[in-house]
Amino acid sequence: MTGDRPTGKLHLGHYVGSLRERVRLQDSGDYEEIFIMIADMQALTDNADDPAKVQKSILELALDYFSVGIDPEKCTVFVQSQVPQLCELTFYYMNLVTVSRLMRNPTVKSEIQMRNFEKSIPVGFLAYPVSQAADITAFKATCVPVGEDQIPMLEQTNEIVRKFNALYGEVLVEPKVLLSKNKYCLRLPGIDGKAKMSKSLGNCIYLSDDEKTLKEKVMSMFTDPEHIKITDPGKVEGNVVFTYLEAFCADEHFKMFLPEYSTLNELKEHYRSGGLGDAKVKKFLSDILNYILSPIREKRKELAKDPTRIYKLLERGSKRAEEAAKRTLDEVRRAIGVCYF
Amino acid sequence: MTGDRPTGKLHLGHYVGSLRERVRLQDSGDYEEIFIMIADMQALTDNADDPAKVQKSILELALDYFSVGIDPEKCTVFVQSQVPQLCELTFYYMNLVTVSRLMRNPTVKSEIQMRNFEKSIPVGFLAYPVSQAADITAFKATCVPVGEDQIPMLEQTNEIVRKFNALYGEVLVEPKVLLSKNKYCLRLPGIDGKAKMSKSLGNCIYLSDDEKTLKEKVMSMFTDPEHIKITDPGKVEGNVVFTYLEAFCADEHFKMFLPEYSTLNELKEHYRSGGLGDAKVKKFLSDILNYILSPIREKRKELAKDPTRIYKLLERGSKRAEEAAKRTLDEVRRAIGVCYF
Repeated sequence: MTGDRPTGKLHLGHYVGSLRERVRLQDSGDYEEIFIMIADMQALTDNADDPAKVQKSILELALDYFSVGIDPEKCTVFVQSQVPQLCELTFYYMNLVTVSRLMRNPTVKSEIQMRNFEKSIPVGFLAYPVSQAADITAFKATCVPVGEDQIPMLEQTNEIVRKFNALYGEVLVEPKVLLSKNKYCLRLPGIDGKAKMSKSLGNCIYLSDDEKTLKEKVMSMFTDPEHIKITDPGKVEGNVVFTYLEAFCADEHFKMFLPEYSTLNELKEHYRSGGLGDAKVKKFLSDILNYILSPIREKRKELAKDPTRIYKLLERGSKRAEEAAKRTLDEVRRAIGVCYF
Repeated sequence: MTGDRPTGKLHLGHYVGSLRERVRLQDSGDYEEIFIMIADMQALTDNADDPAKVQKSILELALDYFSVGIDPEKCTVFVQSQVPQLCELTFYYMNLVTVSRLMRNPTVKSEIQMRNFEKSIPVGFLAYPVSQAADITAFKATCVPVGEDQIPMLEQTNEIVRKFNALYGEVLVEPKVLLSKNKYCLRLPGIDGKAKMSKSLGNCIYLSDDEKTLKEKVMSMFTDPEHIKITDPGKVEGNVVFTYLEAFCADEHFKMFLPEYSTLNELKEHYRSGGLGDAKVKKFLSDILNYILSPIREKRKELAKDPTRIYKLLERGSKRAEEAAKRTLDEVRRAIGVCYF
């Protein structure tokens, strides 16, 4: 079980941080069922005044999903608001969590800061970790692939599961966090070197960027400011181009685009000792990214021609998700004793 | 639209504060539709660890309703948890209210204090005024008969209605408060003279108390501690027996039970000037209460024989309520734009 808020196009950070991993998991055959949620209600918790943005982003997000290789035959891709059982579960779980516990959640804390919500947190925003617990437990998820900033959310979910099961009987399942193994993928920096890609900072490469835009963005990337002449020794730590290479480069890419080297370590050695210019490394990264993104881009263009089909897939997924959530809600209601007729 | 939390039997405070008024409103013919909610989900917000109490109280509450004269043919009596649309509405409204606004709610503040929740308010409890706004607006209620301690709740509802309509378009209706005109009915004191009847203080007279218990409770009522001998002048202010008479006594009761007087004012005058003993006034009150309660008690006994029938009535009411709530939720979702398929 995993998902995203529909608040805009997905970028490379999403790709290496979660999408690529999801496709791998999907194709691994290790999971009986996979649920991927477009969290429109969660997006509304801090976009209540701009529901049109959320609405528009649903299609964009679904296009991103299906073009990176998420297969609607293997995964249940659904829209949160179309599964009303999630609201009911949230309602019951809200009685099991205190306000101060939510306030202590480090992810919520930093998100409150980011949004200047200190003095006026919407109740829905404060409560979204509870709603997330509902989303996860509704499908009795065993594994949740997340970025490390989401770990406190999973802890909150597990607390709710334990409290619920202790009070009402063993109904809910504690999910496990599935973290990406490549540390460079956990949080891809922005092209300007800032810690995180963020739309508002304008430092993202989007999955839907065309070849020219992609190339320009790579060429403008932050490298080592002290690496001025080609002969200067360069630093690869904190150098965005190398961070991206760690996340995206495979040995096969050298044969294809830079046959003078055969591994990333060789390339890094040369950069460190001096004699390797930024432009050459950037060109290599740009080629790799373009190689990875161009089939995605093509598929996206193709899929975007028929939005009705995309919505039909989401509708089908939402119905399937609703059936699963309904089963859990029925158990939850029976356990609490909210069944009278 | 109105309702109660199912957390125990109803007492005389509920009767004069709301039940009697509801029957009057029901029979006035002034209202197209009347919804009365058994707020089981709200009861769970501070009884999450004792759902059995809530479950048991649903039948008790319904028996109280139907025995005081609430007519299931004229009113839609329903159970909150059986109308899941209310959770969805709550979810959307939670984005329109800030945490600090809820913390400022004077009713919530005093309830938090009463429950020793200061350090650990359950999120569901903090959010219950939002959920109440959902309950009220789901039925586009125009009038809500409440006690004065509930006025801040209605203000919260109206704020949500205004914010929603301003953001998404005119969908919701602002309800008006309907306060009882008899000030003695707004908050009936406990038989011990404490400001409020409360189960935990053991100072209530229940609708289901038998004649003997009723009489004993009236005889033990707090009067004027300085009115020792019959000849002493007595105070009627703060004298529970007289407060109850203000709430329950009608002129006709004198003819029936105390023909030496013809109005409550006469009786008060005599008590004030001395020469009227507590026992006589208590006997009068006890006769009146018994006269009012005995048909209620009889009907309750009758109805309690067939709980299945009561549940059937609640089920039918819940279905009717669900239809109405669904209409509003559909409008709400269309207004926000959460309709994609």
